[in-house]
Amino acid sequence: MAASSPIGSSVGRRSLRNDDEAVVDRGGTRSEQRTNFEQEDLEGHRTLYIGVHVPLGSTRHRSHRRHRHHGNKYSRRRSKERVRTLVEGRESPIYDTPSQRVQFLLGTEDDDEEHIPHDLFTEMDEICVREGEDSEWRESARWLKFEEDVEDGGERWSKPYVATLSLHSLFELRCCIINSTVLLDMRASTIEEIADMVLDHQELYSPLGDELRKKVRETLLKQHHHQNQKKLANRLPLVRSIADIGRKTSELHLDKNGQLTASQSQLAVQDGKGDISRDNSSVDFSKIDIHFMKKIPPGAEACNVLVGELEFLNKPVVAFVRLSPAVLLNGLAEVPIATRFLFILLGPLGRGPQYHEIGRSIATLMTDEVFHDVAYKAKDRNDIIAGIDEFLDQVTVLPPGEWDPSIRIEPPKNVPSQEKRKKSNILPNGLVEGEEEEEHDAHGSPELQRTGKWFGGLILDIKRKAPHYLSDYTDACSLQCVASFLFLYCACMSPVITFGGLLGEATEGRISAIESLFGASLTGIAYSLFAGQPLTILGSTGPVLVFEKILFKFCKEYGLSYLSLRTCIGLWTAFLCILLVATDASSLVCYITRFTEEAFASLICIIFIYEALEKLVHLGKHYPFNKNNNLDKLTLYSCSCVEPSDPTNGTLKYWEMNNITASEIYWEALEVKGCIENRGEFVGSACGPQGPYVPDVLFWCVILFFSTVFMSAFLKEFKFSNYFPTKVRSVISDFAVFITILTMVLVDYALGVPSPKLKVPSVFKPTRDDRGWFITPLGPNPWWTAVITVVPAMLCTILIFMDQQITAVIINRKEHKLKKGCGYHLDLFMVGVMLGVCSLMGLPWFVAATVLSITHVNSLKLESECSAPGEQPKFLGIREQRFTGLMIFALMGCSVFMTSVLKFIPMPVLYGVFLYMGASSLRGIQFYDRLRLFGMPAKHQPDFIYLRHVPLRKVHLFTIIQLSCLVLLWTIKTSRAAIVFPMMVSKQRIFLTLKYIGWGYNL
Amino acid sequence: MAASSPIGSSVGRRSLRNDDEAVVDRGGTRSEQRTNFEQEDLEGHRTLYIGVHVPLGSTRHRSHRRHRHHGNKYSRRRSKERVRTLVEGRESPIYDTPSQRVQFLLGTEDDDEEHIPHDLFTEMDEICVREGEDSEWRESARWLKFEEDVEDGGERWSKPYVATLSLHSLFELRCCIINSTVLLDMRASTIEEIADMVLDHQELYSPLGDELRKKVRETLLKQHHHQNQKKLANRLPLVRSIADIGRKTSELHLDKNGQLTASQSQLAVQDGKGDISRDNSSVDFSKIDIHFMKKIPPGAEACNVLVGELEFLNKPVVAFVRLSPAVLLNGLAEVPIATRFLFILLGPLGRGPQYHEIGRSIATLMTDEVFHDVAYKAKDRNDIIAGIDEFLDQVTVLPPGEWDPSIRIEPPKNVPSQEKRKKSNILPNGLVEGEEEEEHDAHGSPELQRTGKWFGGLILDIKRKAPHYLSDYTDACSLQCVASFLFLYCACMSPVITFGGLLGEATEGRISAIESLFGASLTGIAYSLFAGQPLTILGSTGPVLVFEKILFKFCKEYGLSYLSLRTCIGLWTAFLCILLVATDASSLVCYITRFTEEAFASLICIIFIYEALEKLVHLGKHYPFNKNNNLDKLTLYSCSCVEPSDPTNGTLKYWEMNNITASEIYWEALEVKGCIENRGEFVGSACGPQGPYVPDVLFWCVILFFSTVFMSAFLKEFKFSNYFPTKVRSVISDFAVFITILTMVLVDYALGVPSPKLKVPSVFKPTRDDRGWFITPLGPNPWWTAVITVVPAMLCTILIFMDQQITAVIINRKEHKLKKGCGYHLDLFMVGVMLGVCSLMGLPWFVAATVLSITHVNSLKLESECSAPGEQPKFLGIREQRFTGLMIFALMGCSVFMTSVLKFIPMPVLYGVFLYMGASSLRGIQFYDRLRLFGMPAKHQPDFIYLRHVPLRKVHLFTIIQLSCLVLLWTIKTSRAAIVFPMMVSKQRIFLTLKYIGWGYNL
Repeated sequence: MAASSPIGSSVGRRSLRNDDEAVVDRGGTRSEQRTNFEQEDLEGHRTLYIGVHVPLGSTRHRSHRRHRHHGNKYSRRRSKERVRTLVEGRESPIYDTPSQRVQFLLGTEDDDEEHIPHDLFTEMDEICVREGEDSEWRESARWLKFEEDVEDGGERWSKPYVATLSLHSLFELRCCIINSTVLLDMRASTIEEIADMVLDHQELYSPLGDELRKKVRETLLKQHHHQNQKKLANRLPLVRSIADIGRKTSELHLDKNGQLTASQSQLAVQDGKGDISRDNSSVDFSKIDIHFMKKIPPGAEACNVLVGELEFLNKPVVAFVRLSPAVLLNGLAEVPIATRFLFILLGPLGRGPQYHEIGRSIATLMTDEVFHDVAYKAKDRNDIIAGIDEFLDQVTVLPPGEWDPSIRIEPPKNVPSQEKRKKSNILPNGLVEGEEEEEHDAHGSPELQRTGKWFGGLILDIKRKAPHYLSDYTDACSLQCVASFLFLYCACMSPVITFGGLLGEATEGRISAIESLFGASLTGIAYSLFAGQPLTILGSTGPVLVFEKILFKFCKEYGLSYLSLRTCIGLWTAFLCILLVATDASSLVCYITRFTEEAFASLICIIFIYEALEKLVHLGKHYPFNKNNNLDKLTLYSCSCVEPSDPTNGTLKYWEMNNITASEIYWEALEVKGCIENRGEFVGSACGPQGPYVPDVLFWCVILFFSTVFMSAFLKEFKFSNYFPTKVRSVISDFAVFITILTMVLVDYALGVPSPKLKVPSVFKPTRDDRGWFITPLGPNPWWTAVITVVPAMLCTILIFMDQQITAVIINRKEHKLKKGCGYHLDLFMVGVMLGVCSLMGLPWFVAATVLSITHVNSLKLESECSAPGEQPKFLGIREQRFTGLMIFALMGCSVFMTSVLKFIPMPVLYGVFLYMGASSLRGIQFYDRLRLFGMPAKHQPDFIYLRHVPLRKVHLFTIIQLSCLVLLWTIKTSRAAIVFPMMVSKQRIFLTLKYIGWGYNL
Repeated sequence: MAASSPIGSSVGRRSLRNDDEAVVDRGGTRSEQRTNFEQEDLEGHRTLYIGVHVPLGSTRHRSHRRHRHHGNKYSRRRSKERVRTLVEGRESPIYDTPSQRVQFLLGTEDDDEEHIPHDLFTEMDEICVREGEDSEWRESARWLKFEEDVEDGGERWSKPYVATLSLHSLFELRCCIINSTVLLDMRASTIEEIADMVLDHQELYSPLGDELRKKVRETLLKQHHHQNQKKLANRLPLVRSIADIGRKTSELHLDKNGQLTASQSQLAVQDGKGDISRDNSSVDFSKIDIHFMKKIPPGAEACNVLVGELEFLNKPVVAFVRLSPAVLLNGLAEVPIATRFLFILLGPLGRGPQYHEIGRSIATLMTDEVFHDVAYKAKDRNDIIAGIDEFLDQVTVLPPGEWDPSIRIEPPKNVPSQEKRKKSNILPNGLVEGEEEEEHDAHGSPELQRTGKWFGGLILDIKRKAPHYLSDYTDACSLQCVASFLFLYCACMSPVITFGGLLGEATEGRISAIESLFGASLTGIAYSLFAGQPLTILGSTGPVLVFEKILFKFCKEYGLSYLSLRTCIGLWTAFLCILLVATDASSLVCYITRFTEEAFASLICIIFIYEALEKLVHLGKHYPFNKNNNLDKLTLYSCSCVEPSDPTNGTLKYWEMNNITASEIYWEALEVKGCIENRGEFVGSACGPQGPYVPDVLFWCVILFFSTVFMSAFLKEFKFSNYFPTKVRSVISDFAVFITILTMVLVDYALGVPSPKLKVPSVFKPTRDDRGWFITPLGPNPWWTAVITVVPAMLCTILIFMDQQITAVIINRKEHKLKKGCGYHLDLFMVGVMLGVCSLMGLPWFVAATVLSITHVNSLKLESECSAPGEQPKFLGIREQRFTGLMIFALMGCSVFMTSVLKFIPMPVLYGVFLYMGASSLRGIQFYDRLRLFGMPAKHQPDFIYLRHVPLRKVHLFTIIQLSCLVLLWTIKTSRAAIVFPMMVSKQRIFLTLKYIGWGYNL
């Protein structure tokens, strides 16, 4: 600090050596030569000097106070050590930089309760002269975390925004603080006392004169008008008279008759502190914005910034006051919280905008996490100056030519932690210490470590989940959960029934829709009740269908009983699953990397989307329309049933078998179904290749399908629109898909077009009468089938293990911020047990369904209700509970009794929901983001963090490899080969191999 | 400057008094005592002082140099005067603030060509030590207006962003400049010379030692690697050997063998300046990013920032160099432009990030409009310091706790003008002089002033437009114009034909589609060729249709010739219009305020949207579908024609009249048309109320309609997406509607559903044979009709005047930034003349169509091709030309010959286009924005400027009033009452009244 300015250094050093000086730092009492100097500066132009330390060379040369260090590393280590000593050992501190001083100050732990930082609410009031009326203080801005302004004429609060200050006003503020009255830990209980003390102090080094003093005092005691008090002037008398009851001392009295002398208020003070605070706490709640009050954290204190121009003043009156204890100064702040800080700046006329900016600067400083602590802990003026300097050292600067300062910057999603400013991990040479790697890989997570004991993992899972079991139900008290299970019930119904239908076709009705429904419900309920991760939704998968098909064909060929054989396989599979649980095999999932996860999830999503569209296209076959319709010939169009003119052999045989005599049938009267049953022929210009053209249905299905997709997406996104209050929007968003389905059902019903509907079995009994709800494992099959079935069972086990666990990994991923832990072993155990049960009852098997599970998780996202205005809501986690899962599957079980309602749901609507689910699950998958990069020129690409660090061609290469894996997987998974599923493992192996080839970065 | 620091003030004052000192300010040559002081500071920690002037009190007190001023206004005026004197009179300047110094400096007009500021391209290179290889300079960032970084490992340019600096590094930079070598107007032609001079200078006050000096020199001469040179190292030898041919002196030679002595290069310099620049201009273009080169403005010069850490240095070497003249230092900058500035900062190891930040700071400063000028004009180091201080005084500061500095801020739409920083309209007390009102009301615009002469306005219009006439065609050379007229041709066809059809129905074919087409084409061509505002598109309006209907009914009742009577009215109207032109009545439009404009435009847009939807709904009547279809009974469905079982009297009479014998007709064989013609009855389960149900058509129309709307909107918005290069996107966006129509036509054709198509007359002859292309005004009518028709003509005139001129006002509004001026009189004149012509030819009348005109203008928007990366394209104006209008109507005239193509366009597609046009015209109408505010809670409302200043309830009240006017207008306009159009005037009167009631603000 060789050539430090006279003000900064001399005052700074003196105060440092006077640590035991009176805490109330009444600047003026110091010495004559200083007062003299400052006074000269206070009026007119001032020149301000700040000491910013510029350690340019690493060879540290501090000629006056510190000896030289030589060498790079050495000096760096040394200085780091020194700072540490300063902070920890608390030896007599010699500060290098403001930052170190601040860090030292924040490091001290005060036993004094008064200096523990609280949250702060800052309010800026400006004196406002009204024509003909008395002037008053008018609120002009407030801060909780971001700035909110009272709009000029708008009589409204602006949107919260990032306070953009001008450096100029910050320097002016610094100058103000240097030359102002700084009163720390003032004991006062009313605004009058504070005004008196501030003016007394002012008197000491820059007398105002009696008249001016009186006028300033009057101004300080003027009434405060807050933005939320709409028509205060009109209704005040009544309100006040009510509020006044039982109040002894209140500044409102004084506002009215400013004549009350200070002695009187002094008397009141002597009544005791407790008394006063009790008095002051009788707040007039009619004036408070309750909604805003809720946003103020409990225990918060107020900081009042009072700035304004007064025509009678010829020099500014500036004061920074910290009260101790904090006092509830009724009417001063917008909300009834105790005031801790006061900043007063009154100056001559004509500089209003400047004062306003200075007020904003101090208010923003008080909102700053670090300066706020400094203000609480400051021992004297110099600590505060150091706080400002430290703040200045940390600010971000926008060049004037590149940014319009009048643009209000929206608060960012995330604000960087200010912790590093508080602790001295910034080395004195300005470099930041390497931050610790916080990357916590799944590999190391304790849930997936092998215990080495039989069922060790399972036991640990149970132990981990048991304490949360009650909360798994109590946490479900939310409308969001209702929305979630209604949505997912609709979404789950269709695949289960479709799957059942397909299975029924394949197995000649041995296992069909009702079995599928019953099985899903049973497994789902059990799983939801006892699984490790109840957020997973079970469903049916394609490979299982293929497997059952092949098995049935095999049984038919070799004359075996299909149901018994599959019971055997099922029991073996269940056994193997439980064996896997016993041996903690699930701990292998720690090898499932992001690469695998993403590829798997993308694959499933794409299949979902593809299948939704495929089903729509498929409708075109069922409902053909007349492509070459001539509207003028409609009178001639018809398609009737006639006797086949030239019946084929097959037809003849069929007639014979079914005792049909063609000539006895009145063919023309047959309906479509009857005609097909009797192998009649369709004749007429309205006939398509398979039967009559079906008018309207296909196009109506298309309309329903796309309307569903768009409406779901629109309603879901509605949360982020600007209309309606937040509450309404979030409810609409939560119920988006349900509302859509409901609307579509109503529209479809109103129009009456015979679109295909969801067909739910209406009676609860097995499809075929020759089977019951219990299947014997052997039945008519020879004994060796019970042994040989272990081979397909092993394949089955691998299939189920992979599907189940990859989905579980996706659900349990770190980004979801789950708090109740995972339970891979318990999950698998439940799946295994229910697999056995289903097999014995002749029901299909169910494993975790990826897209449904992701959708389930997404529908339960929990966001913080934003505390400070302008703060972005944070993703807090997922509503982890068992209720939604339970309800989905319980409802599914009851569907049999709800057919009268369910039969109105058109299938295209459900297909639309699938498309929507698939597409929305794709979002957030990085692979998909990278895929989109292909279409973008480099300069338009979004600012992904990996694009900053990895060359584009490498990113593209990676994407291409992932894409080709995916294509490969898809062709395998959708082909019949899926059943030979060792390649399901090889999929995993491909992923692992790719992962460990190592792309030099972990995407 | 009472307590100014020794450095700042002493040096500052000295240099001020040495204005005739050598321009090359070789700092070190000054004096011993200073060198001594600086040297001590250069190593180790430095403390930096900046003088920021804080004029807190208005009573200016400057004790040392200036006498006191008393009083507020007086002092302010005085100081303003003083600054003025300083700037204008150029008396010996005594600077108050850095800002004033900068303003003085920029105010000086150098005769010296060397000090005229050029545009600057700034490039930062950092020294990069590569393992095993020689180190080289590597480009790490560049600036044209915004910063672009080379991403760490990304090998790519970041998106341009607003450079966020840290205040710390700005202060460090300031310190660097204070203590560095500042060499202004150095004459050097090679990098070697520069290096030598810099090092010579360094030697003078801080010797490095011979070895270090040599090493530093070597470093400075190292090869530069630029981001665009992908694999320089590999292909360099070949490239270089080619590029080297014919080059005498080049620093590339020296890169290879750094042994070349300075004397050699000195020799080369003596060859003469011209020679060198010729030599240097032989640039190796293979290495230059041609695309980027295009973005650099012509005449730009380069500023090279070279920073880096060198392990052998123990103190930093800093230099700021301004070359005079600018020299093309080959290979130094990424693009072959002459280098004017060099900033060198080499320091010891370990401070790389700091040096990087300092480099960014100086580069950002050089990009700043004001500092850039200062750098060009600076006479010495202190000017540059003042420039930095002035910059610091203007920066915007973001608090560390509210903003994450690592967020890259997107360049704003508009950057505030920096002009006020250059001129001293900022009073010395910090207040800004009131900016002049730039609001230029339409009331004052010269085009609309009454001349007081017959046809005075018309003559002025012609005079104003004549000079632009040629450019009206040459300006149309753009793909955008093709897109525009193709789109608008499609859009205009349908209403003209529909209008014709409706008119044909109403007038029993006297005026029908072909007349409408011919009239539109004729009027349109004439208008496009000669009108004052050829951007206006003419079309048919509803009231005209209503008028014609009433007129026809009247004529029929009273046995008058309709065509002749309307010719009379038309001629009268034409005459009255020309009378209005003659009396400059169009100047009345200056009373059309934004309120009227907006209400009118909204009304028309809403009508457009409403009609599009209505037409779609209307299709439901034409194409009824079977609401209660039973798909199983399709075989039994038919709808055939039968003889009416119980013919009504009307039917019997009709048969008699047309000689139909019911029994002779084979009813069952009749097609729909035939059945209706013969008054048959439809019988069957496939029969609707009016005839057979029409399958598929309605739903297919719905799909076509909404697909068109979504696809148009999507393709139009595609411009703002991130995919594909800008060029492709803008073409897709321009052709959006045309592509959509084309796609839809193809899809419709492929599917073959008989959707309604556009029906264009295929023969060019009047619809009815009893009329020709010329109508006599009297014809069979009695003589007095020629007189009496003046009454309806007056009504017509008002109607046409209002429609025409309000549309013209909307087109000519200020926001469109039209450059060729308006021509209200000429417009009306053309409309009047063509009205007469059309009347004589028996064609319908055409006036300006609001939505089509707005769409036309929107499709011709001209945006700046963004010059600097990151700069937002600016709206430059509209492609004002006559070509598109001409083409639209010429094509329309030729439509008769294009029926074979046009008949494939489905009507629902055109309706979709209307909906899109209506909706997109609504955007940008403030009324619509305000309407949307109703749904938003106050805190979510966008930051509209009027919301900042006008209380919300007043805004709402205003909107409600406007809305009710609109509803009123609509009911009137769509009702039959529209014809009694004095209320069209009252509409205007309502608007005017409302306007002058005055809402306290002009929305």
